[in-house]
Order: sequence, then structure tokens, then C-alpha cells
Amino acid sequence: MQSFVQENPTRIWFGEGQIKQLQQELGSAGKRVLLVYGGGSIKANGVYKAVKEQLEHRQAEVFELSGVEPNPRLTTVNKGIEICRDKQIELILAVGGGSVIDCVKAISAGAYYEGDFWDIVTRQAVPTRAIPFGTVLTLAATGSEMNNISVITHWERNEKRGWSSRLAYPKFSILDPTYTHSVPMDQTVYGIVDMMSHVLEQYFHRTSNTTMIDRFMESVLLTVIEAAPMLLADLHNTDFRAAVMYAGTTAFNGLLSSGTDGGDWASHQIEHGLSAIYDIPHGGGLAILFPNWMQHCAEDDPSRMTKLAVNVFGIDSAGKTDYEIASEGILALRNFWNSLGAPSKLGDYGIDASRFDELVEKSFMKDKVGQYKIMTRETVKDILMRSLS
Amino acid sequence: MQSFVQENPTRIWFGEGQIKQLQQELGSAGKRVLLVYGGGSIKANGVYKAVKEQLEHRQAEVFELSGVEPNPRLTTVNKGIEICRDKQIELILAVGGGSVIDCVKAISAGAYYEGDFWDIVTRQAVPTRAIPFGTVLTLAATGSEMNNISVITHWERNEKRGWSSRLAYPKFSILDPTYTHSVPMDQTVYGIVDMMSHVLEQYFHRTSNTTMIDRFMESVLLTVIEAAPMLLADLHNTDFRAAVMYAGTTAFNGLLSSGTDGGDWASHQIEHGLSAIYDIPHGGGLAILFPNWMQHCAEDDPSRMTKLAVNVFGIDSAGKTDYEIASEGILALRNFWNSLGAPSKLGDYGIDASRFDELVEKSFMKDKVGQYKIMTRETVKDILMRSLS
Repeated sequence: MQSFVQENPTRIWFGEGQIKQLQQELGSAGKRVLLVYGGGSIKANGVYKAVKEQLEHRQAEVFELSGVEPNPRLTTVNKGIEICRDKQIELILAVGGGSVIDCVKAISAGAYYEGDFWDIVTRQAVPTRAIPFGTVLTLAATGSEMNNISVITHWERNEKRGWSSRLAYPKFSILDPTYTHSVPMDQTVYGIVDMMSHVLEQYFHRTSNTTMIDRFMESVLLTVIEAAPMLLADLHNTDFRAAVMYAGTTAFNGLLSSGTDGGDWASHQIEHGLSAIYDIPHGGGLAILFPNWMQHCAEDDPSRMTKLAVNVFGIDSAGKTDYEIASEGILALRNFWNSLGAPSKLGDYGIDASRFDELVEKSFMKDKVGQYKIMTRETVKDILMRSLS
Repeated sequence: MQSFVQENPTRIWFGEGQIKQLQQELGSAGKRVLLVYGGGSIKANGVYKAVKEQLEHRQAEVFELSGVEPNPRLTTVNKGIEICRDKQIELILAVGGGSVIDCVKAISAGAYYEGDFWDIVTRQAVPTRAIPFGTVLTLAATGSEMNNISVITHWERNEKRGWSSRLAYPKFSILDPTYTHSVPMDQTVYGIVDMMSHVLEQYFHRTSNTTMIDRFMESVLLTVIEAAPMLLADLHNTDFRAAVMYAGTTAFNGLLSSGTDGGDWASHQIEHGLSAIYDIPHGGGLAILFPNWMQHCAEDDPSRMTKLAVNVFGIDSAGKTDYEIASEGILALRNFWNSLGAPSKLGDYGIDASRFDELVEKSFMKDKVGQYKIMTRETVKDILMRSLS
């Protein structure tokens, strides 16, 4: 194990009907609240109404920012910042999935930053103060509801980048699995791929003596692999929605990196490049790239892929080389994602090799890409080539 | 899953040399600090010196309370409360194991309570304010370093009772596995039994759809079962100390009850009665009682014991009844604890049946004993009888 700090100030209210806790979290009456959401789905499924009822009960003065994009854009962040300053917002409430939450994290810290918020995303500046915010989760996927990470897209520059800050933890998050009942099949699948990818990124570390946390990661993966097909056959089942929702939050709240080097994250870097250029769903991009990254890396050192194959996919290791075991595990992962309906090649989105050079550059937004294996522009291109068809 | 709240405000600094973080936690210079510890072991092993160096570096004004008992007593809590009031203590620092930390939790809340602190332990009063405190852990066992639970003994009344409060979380805890290198064999074993018992108590719940958390619990048990024999053969091994230390903290920091009914805890209630009368080590009492509680319960409903037997002890279930599988698992647990040198019968402590009636009454300090199976005075006595030899 490496030395580490474990802390997470977010309070999670999990379960059906937990929206009522919003009153307690709002505290005394009269707060000026900015309500942030995406498209109209929360109006169709009743979540908007439930939130508004709680806010009205506390006589909160509510302002709204809607239309946050699936890959939330700097321009939208700036709109939110303007409202916060203009209306002296005291609490921001994100009602939605990871995109809305990521956007709110940026608004929250940006409201107190005088310069261009992109400075913070690009680590030219560090936030020193933030408006408190909470979340009402409506999509199980990114884990943003219990971490301090936010990914923002600068659409004009085709750049999609993550930033983080100790100020970017939600004060509270309300996780009601029934709020995800109406999430359509494809979004549900992308969410499942996304949370599994978060675990996999962390699983591919090189720290020794991490058996408990390794088992925790395998536990999250096994639980999702078990629940996902049942959920897709019965999208309104609260038990399956709950299992997947809690797995998604746990997948990326810091716990699973305790004592490790933090894992690899090259696949995420490459995917950020991909969805910055093509605006495809993050989970779709990951489903295509991750198995190819694994196969690429297993050719050098299959150790962790072998462990995953045996412990998570139940691959029988008798009489096989490590590489063979690893390859069977990678195939099992791809087959599992395919069985859910996730894409498996760039061609599924009509993407060809024509912008690969640009895409490689977009993947190198950070100086270092990858940790399990340090990527070069050549190795990223190799992974993209493997992903074509 | 049941509805639940997940929050834990304690900051954990884990790893060799993390004592240096004490400076950051102390903040600006000049704090009035009460240093609380048990016997002289922290002076012999260098931990006392390391802590004092950090405190001196910040020009803290340090007062001391030493001699906290293995089952910390109300009289000692009262001594600490008096010092806090007398010296206007601003931060309390527990340096030791669960007993010292539990004592500090009581001092911290008791300093602001005008009445007898036993009122709080017996839930006649609720703490409303507490002096902030941190811990430097020197024994992996109770998990008190990351939870809000404290167990105090009223020695004159032979009563040992737990209390908890949202104010009783440590602000920070420093977990340096090398600080546990000098813990002797028997204390190390009791700690291992204690942390495993915490997981087992939580494992014996009756909530459905808890697969991820069930797997987490199995992961903690598997990790301890794997590490313990290696650690006992090599007490100064930092990797094994680290694995056991982190498992002990995770075993009882709230996470493993997320979404469940909280588990059973009858064995703990009975053990509190036992060690209130006989002052035996908590881990020793649990090693004797827990398998007998399991066997007693398995006779009615072996379901969870069967799951444990298969998933943790690798019992082959082919051709066996659930009760047979459960019984083999219980025997495997007892054999494992025996192999570490833990006691297996009350006779090992020279305890006979002469005070069983009194002991049964002590177990009923709370109205309800047990949850997986609600205990009566008769069933508690049955477990004690099974534990005699």
C-alpha cells in the first residue's frame, strides 16, 4: 500500500423518498437557490415537481438554468456563473446526471473566480472559494455525486478536460433509485459501461499489498455484471436500479484508490479526445476503447488483466499462459458489453481514421497519459487502430 | 436495500510517516492540547516522542491524561473532563487503541455536559457540543478511529455500555502501520478477532438486495484471514500490519452497514456483560461467544451462515444441507481463531456458570438484544452454556 488520505465530506441520502431530506439540507427558509438541469426529462418524470415542492416548502427563492449538454460546455458554465453573481445565489442544486453535476461544480467554483473559468480547468488557476451545492441524481453513471471531479468541454476548441478541487465535493447528494426508472435503455447501458470503466481504470494499478481494495473493486464489477442484464430486462425494477446506482457512486468516490497509485486512466484520456471531436456518449466511447487498451497492454504485461479474468469473469486458468487467460477475460468483458447493446468499434458511430492524428493530440491534454503503461502518441494510435473495426 | 445515509467526516491519514500531518491538523500554533494515552507502551516504542515533537513544533501547550484502562472507565473519563474544563483544552489527542479513543470521545462530549456523563452513556441526555479531537492509532482492532461509537465501563456497577453521537467522530486519525509493530502477539490476535467480529455482526442482517455490501464484507474477512497468519509469523512486517490496520478501520466505519438493517450485535451485547464482570479482553470474549451464537442461530435459520461458509471459508456445498454447510463454516471460523491462539471456551479464562444469571442481566442493558435473532434471557443463557467448554 502507498500512503494515502481518505476523506469524503459528501453526505449521501440513499433510497426511495429521500427527496424529503432536501428540506433538512436547505436549512432555514429563504435561501436563494439556483436549480440546474439538462433537457426536459425531469419535467416528464416528476422529479422536477418533487424538487420544486421541497424548495417551495422552505420558501426558497428559485432561479433556473436548464439545457446543460451531455458533455457540459464552458459557455453553459459561464451562464450559470453570471446568474450566481447577478442573483446572489446561496445554494446550487444540480438535478440530473454527471453532466449537470459537473457543470454545477464549475459554476460553484467559478462564481468566485474573476478570470476565465477555463483557467481553472487548465490548472492555470486554483479555486479558493465555492458556493455550496447539492445534487439530486437522475442517472447512475459518473459517480460525480460523491467526488470532487468535473469534466468540462470547450466546444470551440474541441477540448474536453477534467479538473478537481477539494471545494468541488457536493455538500449532499440525494440518490433515489426510482428517479432513474425512466432512464432509457441506451443511457442505462452507457452508465453501466461508464461506472465499470471507472473501476477498471483504478484496477489497473501497480501497487502491491492492496488485496482488500482489489477485492472491493472486483465486488463492484461482479455486482454490476450480475444486476445489469436483469435491469435491462426490467427497467422499472427498483432493486436493480438501486444496486446499479449505489455501485456507480461507490465506483468513483475515492475509496477504490485507497493505498494504490490511482490506476491508469489512459482510456479516459483517449475517450475525452474522442468525444470532444465527435460528441459521442462517453460510455459508448469507453466501451469501444477500453478492451483495446487492455489487449494492447496485456501484450507487455498481462498480470492485472489475468487477475481480472479469473476473479471477475471466472476464466478457468488451467493449462493457459497468463496472456491467454488475460485475453479470454478481455473477450468476456467485450462480449458482456456487447450483450448489453454497447458499441464495440468506432465504425458503429461512423468514425474512421481520418482525424486520428488530431485525436491523438487531443488525448495528450495532460503531459502524462496512462500509468499502468505510459502512453506515447504511437501507442495511442495503435489503440485507435485496433478500435476501428 | 433499505434507505440509508452515508457520511463520515473523519479524515484518515494512512501510511508510514503520516505523523507529520499532525502539524497541518493542529493548524496555527498555540493550541491547548490534552494528550490522552494508556499504559507506557507508547513511551517504549517511540510513538509518544514522535507525537510530542510534532506538538512542540507548533508550540502547543500540552496537558496529559495517562493510564486509560483496556475497558475505559467512567472515573477516567471524569478525570479528563476535569482537565479539559480546568485548562480550557481546545483539542484532544488520543494516542492508543480503541480504549483510549473511546475514552477521548467521552471526554470530548462530556466537557460541555454539566451532569454526570453516565447520563449520556445511558441515553438520558444527548451531547450538544464537543471539543474537537484526533487520534494516533497504535492498535488495529475496534475501528473507533473512524466511527462515532464509544464504549465506557461503569466499574462500580459492573456495567459496560456503548453510546454514539454525530459529535463523536474524530476530526482526523493518523494510521501508521509501523506504530503497531510492537503490539504483542496476544493483543494482535484480540484485535483481529475484534475486527472480524465487527464484520460478522454486520453480515448477519436480514435485508435483501445487498450483494455489493455483502461482497465488501466478505472481502474484509478474506483479507484478514489471509494476512493474519503471515502477520503473526512476522509481527514487524509493515505490509501485513497495514493490511490488518486498514481492514480494521474499514470493518466498522459505517460503510459495511450501508443499506442493511445494521446486523445483529447480540454477541457484542453478551460480551459486554462478560467483560464488565470479568474484565477479560473484548476480543477474547468474542472469540468464545460468536461461534456459539452462530451455531445457536443456524439451528433456526442457517441462510447467512451458509453464505459465509461458502464465500469466505470455501466450504464445498455439494450434497449437503444448508445447516451442514453452515456448521462446517462455523467450525472453520473457530478453527481459524484457535489457530491464531484465541480462546475458545469460558474455561480458558477460568469462568464457570456461577454468575450466568447476573451475566444474562448485564447483556440486557438495552431493551432489545439481537436482530438476526431476537434474544431472550433463555437464548442468551443457552449461548453461555454452549460457551462453557
